[in-house]
Amino acid sequence: MTTKAAPTYTDIVSATCNIREHIRPTPLLRSRVLDELSGGHVLIKTEILQRTGSFKFRGAFNKIRRIADQSTNANIVAWSTGNHAQAVAAAARVCGLSSAIVMPQDAPKAKVEGTLKQGGEIIFYNREKENRETIGKRLAKEREAFIVPPYDDIDVIGGQGTVGLEAASQALMEDMIPDIALIPCGGGGLIAGCSIPLKTHFPSIKIHPVEPQGFDDTTRSLAARKRMKNSTNASSICDSLLVSTPGKITFKINLEHLSDGIVVTDDQVKSAIRFAFQHLKLVVEPGGAVGLAALLTNIARYKNRTVLLVLSGGNVDEAIFRRILSE
Amino acid sequence: MTTKAAPTYTDIVSATCNIREHIRPTPLLRSRVLDELSGGHVLIKTEILQRTGSFKFRGAFNKIRRIADQSTNANIVAWSTGNHAQAVAAAARVCGLSSAIVMPQDAPKAKVEGTLKQGGEIIFYNREKENRETIGKRLAKEREAFIVPPYDDIDVIGGQGTVGLEAASQALMEDMIPDIALIPCGGGGLIAGCSIPLKTHFPSIKIHPVEPQGFDDTTRSLAARKRMKNSTNASSICDSLLVSTPGKITFKINLEHLSDGIVVTDDQVKSAIRFAFQHLKLVVEPGGAVGLAALLTNIARYKNRTVLLVLSGGNVDEAIFRRILSE
Repeated sequence: MTTKAAPTYTDIVSATCNIREHIRPTPLLRSRVLDELSGGHVLIKTEILQRTGSFKFRGAFNKIRRIADQSTNANIVAWSTGNHAQAVAAAARVCGLSSAIVMPQDAPKAKVEGTLKQGGEIIFYNREKENRETIGKRLAKEREAFIVPPYDDIDVIGGQGTVGLEAASQALMEDMIPDIALIPCGGGGLIAGCSIPLKTHFPSIKIHPVEPQGFDDTTRSLAARKRMKNSTNASSICDSLLVSTPGKITFKINLEHLSDGIVVTDDQVKSAIRFAFQHLKLVVEPGGAVGLAALLTNIARYKNRTVLLVLSGGNVDEAIFRRILSE
Repeated sequence: MTTKAAPTYTDIVSATCNIREHIRPTPLLRSRVLDELSGGHVLIKTEILQRTGSFKFRGAFNKIRRIADQSTNANIVAWSTGNHAQAVAAAARVCGLSSAIVMPQDAPKAKVEGTLKQGGEIIFYNREKENRETIGKRLAKEREAFIVPPYDDIDVIGGQGTVGLEAASQALMEDMIPDIALIPCGGGGLIAGCSIPLKTHFPSIKIHPVEPQGFDDTTRSLAARKRMKNSTNASSICDSLLVSTPGKITFKINLEHLSDGIVVTDDQVKSAIRFAFQHLKLVVEPGGAVGLAALLTNIARYKNRTVLLVLSGGNVDEAIFRRILSE
């Protein structure tokens, strides 16, 4: 759609206009318990309450609506572990387009069902033996379809950036200037997009990507100042953050805007999910809870600070949630 | 504090001013899934996100702050199955007063822990053999303490009414005029308080109390136009709504303002909790979910209607929540 290297602040504003009638502005919540624990102010951006249960609808819809503007009977192809899948299917349906999404056989049941309910066609693949991008690109060629990448795309990043713009406006309306942002990071689309309005409104903010252990590619890439790969035999409960390496476009933005990465263990993520259940009354999926896990694990570090936390998704299977609560 | 028979609209405004610095305004959420299911508009007032996890803090704080204004070293006594207990303990602490709360031995663990954490002293009683009001009144006499009743008190009702005033303002800001309100009803304090601003702003609104099966005292009392009692051998998972008969003050207000009651079964409540988990990403306790249960059980009834739903509390034990999810 565009050949720019990164969305500008104006592109994020334009994305907001493009999607605003179809997304839900999500609350920026406060929690007395978290504020007391940290000794500072915690601003909780609740993208779990977004349409399709994660921030992903923003980027997918921003991209797909622009495709639909050019080609009213376009086919859409995407690949995703789940949240992007649901978002693409829902966004395509709103625009009257058909969608096919390549998903791993072991994707969470809630995400598979959500995708089917939104009218998406699912093509399953074996995560260990096959490459989803290869399958997706072949499919797109066969069907003369447009690809909606999960993160490495200017319009997708622009759409995700509306989370940051919305949060910045909400923080300012409450007289809050965040010093620190803790944002979940998989391919890096959400944090890259958010970093643009956050750095514009709060030039001295430190934006930390938070990643699950074994999938700390962005953390290591930022340190090395070049894109690094994860080991292929790592595993994590954070299904929505499992990528092999940062995106090309996202990493370029992130290298410019981000502070050092924070890595959390599955146990820390589970504690964060239990905390959100007990004290925030919110349902957060593992990948969506890494920022909260980072905060709780080193809570003393945030004394007298104003922290912006993004809870990026809430699509977790009942069985997994029950197991986490019982541990 | 006052000898009026009911709070006026002005009393609710005054309660809002009295408590506003210490409560959290809670979001009025929308859910595309619920709107599509009902074919109307559903406005979800999320008092699960209130301080101490339920609306109860509003009424307790409104009352206790007025007590503290008159007597800076007052002792506070209350009785409660749990949510009012946590609220009283927290409100007393904010005002620098000590509190003692009479709670049943089988109160949910989360509520007992919450009360202790807020600095409340707990006196346990046996729900089948003892009367909590008798114990509470004796204790208040011994300690020369002020009683903060769970619902049958003008200032408590006034505080709970701020939920309705806040929701009315939020609805109006979104150009929404609710036709129907579905509000959980135990002793009737929340719904009595809310009915005052709701009837003022939306004169033709129908406000339905929702009660658990076996504890439909308000539903039957409204039909009989006099206070009726529940059978003493009924049981329900809705621990926060288990009273024996409507309050005197609350019933007088409710008889004037409410439409007929709706009764839901434990199974319908469990379905509603699962729905909230899956589609709203919210943790709702059984008593807090009866309004949602009423909506989902007769969803066809709400086509083309604008429904205001109060999710009144989210304090549910992990073990119970897990069991409900697995059913």
